[in-house]
Amino acid sequence: MSEGTSRDAGSEAPAYGAAGVRLEAAERVKRRFGDLVRSTSGPEVLGGLGGFGGCFAIGRAPEADPVLVASADGVGTKILVARSAGVHHTVGQDLVNHCVNDLLASGARPLFFLDYIAAGRLDEEVAVALVEGFARGCRDNGLALLGGETAEMPDLYEPEAYDLAGFVVGVAPRARLERWNRCAEPDDVVLGLASSGLHTNGYTLARKTVQAAGVRLDEETPWGGETWSEALLAIHRSYLPAVAPLLDDEALRGAAHVTGGGFEGNLPRALPDGVGALLDRGAWDEPPLFRWISREGGVSIDEMSRVFNLGIGFCLVVAPEAADRIAAGCAEAGHSARRIGNIVAGSGVQWA
Amino acid sequence: MSEGTSRDAGSEAPAYGAAGVRLEAAERVKRRFGDLVRSTSGPEVLGGLGGFGGCFAIGRAPEADPVLVASADGVGTKILVARSAGVHHTVGQDLVNHCVNDLLASGARPLFFLDYIAAGRLDEEVAVALVEGFARGCRDNGLALLGGETAEMPDLYEPEAYDLAGFVVGVAPRARLERWNRCAEPDDVVLGLASSGLHTNGYTLARKTVQAAGVRLDEETPWGGETWSEALLAIHRSYLPAVAPLLDDEALRGAAHVTGGGFEGNLPRALPDGVGALLDRGAWDEPPLFRWISREGGVSIDEMSRVFNLGIGFCLVVAPEAADRIAAGCAEAGHSARRIGNIVAGSGVQWA
Repeated sequence: MSEGTSRDAGSEAPAYGAAGVRLEAAERVKRRFGDLVRSTSGPEVLGGLGGFGGCFAIGRAPEADPVLVASADGVGTKILVARSAGVHHTVGQDLVNHCVNDLLASGARPLFFLDYIAAGRLDEEVAVALVEGFARGCRDNGLALLGGETAEMPDLYEPEAYDLAGFVVGVAPRARLERWNRCAEPDDVVLGLASSGLHTNGYTLARKTVQAAGVRLDEETPWGGETWSEALLAIHRSYLPAVAPLLDDEALRGAAHVTGGGFEGNLPRALPDGVGALLDRGAWDEPPLFRWISREGGVSIDEMSRVFNLGIGFCLVVAPEAADRIAAGCAEAGHSARRIGNIVAGSGVQWA
Repeated sequence: MSEGTSRDAGSEAPAYGAAGVRLEAAERVKRRFGDLVRSTSGPEVLGGLGGFGGCFAIGRAPEADPVLVASADGVGTKILVARSAGVHHTVGQDLVNHCVNDLLASGARPLFFLDYIAAGRLDEEVAVALVEGFARGCRDNGLALLGGETAEMPDLYEPEAYDLAGFVVGVAPRARLERWNRCAEPDDVVLGLASSGLHTNGYTLARKTVQAAGVRLDEETPWGGETWSEALLAIHRSYLPAVAPLLDDEALRGAAHVTGGGFEGNLPRALPDGVGALLDRGAWDEPPLFRWISREGGVSIDEMSRVFNLGIGFCLVVAPEAADRIAAGCAEAGHSARRIGNIVAGSGVQWA
């Protein structure tokens, strides 16, 4: 039997074959996957065309001299927390939102997403929960789930193990990209947008600390109001509502998605040569989960800030006179944004 | 430390951070990856823009009313053969070529590719060999390797284990897609293009049979001229040279990539309702590897034809009067094409 089966939004009969899951369940799963895929399809998705790939009409996109921007990502070992907690419908959203934020940080509007699911043996309900997560993430961001691949490889993965990869394509007018992340100046303001938790970074260190502390995922955290499972699986936030209205705002000089590498690894990517960022760690309250990991794990401040987002998932570099206006717009879009520092002559990230 | 690191053709300083491989090797690997990525970059790849994603200019593509066609895939457990043989530079080409063929079967011209590499612990030479394979596959097909993600997850993968996913995006004029795979008629000819071996399908069954027979990968096969390793790792053939010149040829009525599901699972996707294919198994010589698997594994003809390509990796459905001309064109492009059947009223695939 074939090991991989594809799901293509473009084909009338999605090629979710008999092999990815047991024969007896294949037809039912195919129907459920098809419904989920269709729930994300806007008018640009051309059903019934192609046949071996998903089809997305780009011809009427409003962007002048359009440039496609693409990115690939995974969710790291957040997957292992999902598995331990038996919660499989959120990691797909994590991955879509992560990919969307990478495009936003590149100045692009996201168009469509494809997924790869690899597993030892994929239980039907787990498979559907994973694709439900992708579909919900796509719907929430206005993306099409254009296709995907599901592979069962019992000799490569443990029976219950799975891994996910995501792939996103967006579009931007060329002129925007030519200024994007290239025009920050000294005295520009760095606005920090609140994260929902760890997002998808630092899970190796976080899991190790949690395990060493002997906590159970269904226990309440010491700071209360949520279980460990809820705290560790909080969905990676999409900053689309806050950032999409700013894509053509000339007061926005750069944007950074705070992922692996933290501020130091990501904020400089939003800056031209000759300038750096001076950040003030006291400008926001570090959420209790990060403080707990630092204390319980004996993790230095320096390492914490290279591994984790510390409560700020996305940075906007904005002209000083526009900072209040843009922060207010973010708040209206549901994203708390605060001044966390300034652009200075130099390079990299320094802490005040 | 972060678990995932991205490689983006669009950024001046590719974000291959310190985490994907050991710190001491990170800079060197970053340089080697950067060279490989750049070796695939044509003028459409906009280096230095974006920053969190690869950038590909689509604005000057010649296609009228352009439609993007995208597909995701893996290489299945061919990876395990690569690992056993210690040969890591070919599976990347397998994956690129597989993805390219899926786009060709959809009527699209491939533009760019992104990869996902997940591993337990990624040796530097293995990582570079994998990306070398992606880069060579992309160069050979004229694609840009626009980005990728490398993730080390020792708690999810065995130390030496890795998995690969690939994502491809192509483009087609909308008018082509509206006729593609939708206009075959009775008496049209099915041309079969020779495969190079198993391509990327059926490896679970093939490996099981090889293991049960107790052969060693470095032994010569019974039919001679190649070792088992060479036979099992023969690179998935790209049909781009044969099919690209035919994308706007109205005599080409449909195209099918013979992958998982074999002829029955794939050829009908190239046909409209009301017609099927009548194929003649005697029209080509089944290569010895398939005959050996069938005999040694006691695999029925029916199962063989659902799992394997049996020596035909791609099918073209062509107007009868154009069959000789198109077959000659394929041969000139280096792809042997033979008549393997006809389109008939009905549905699915029947065998003469």
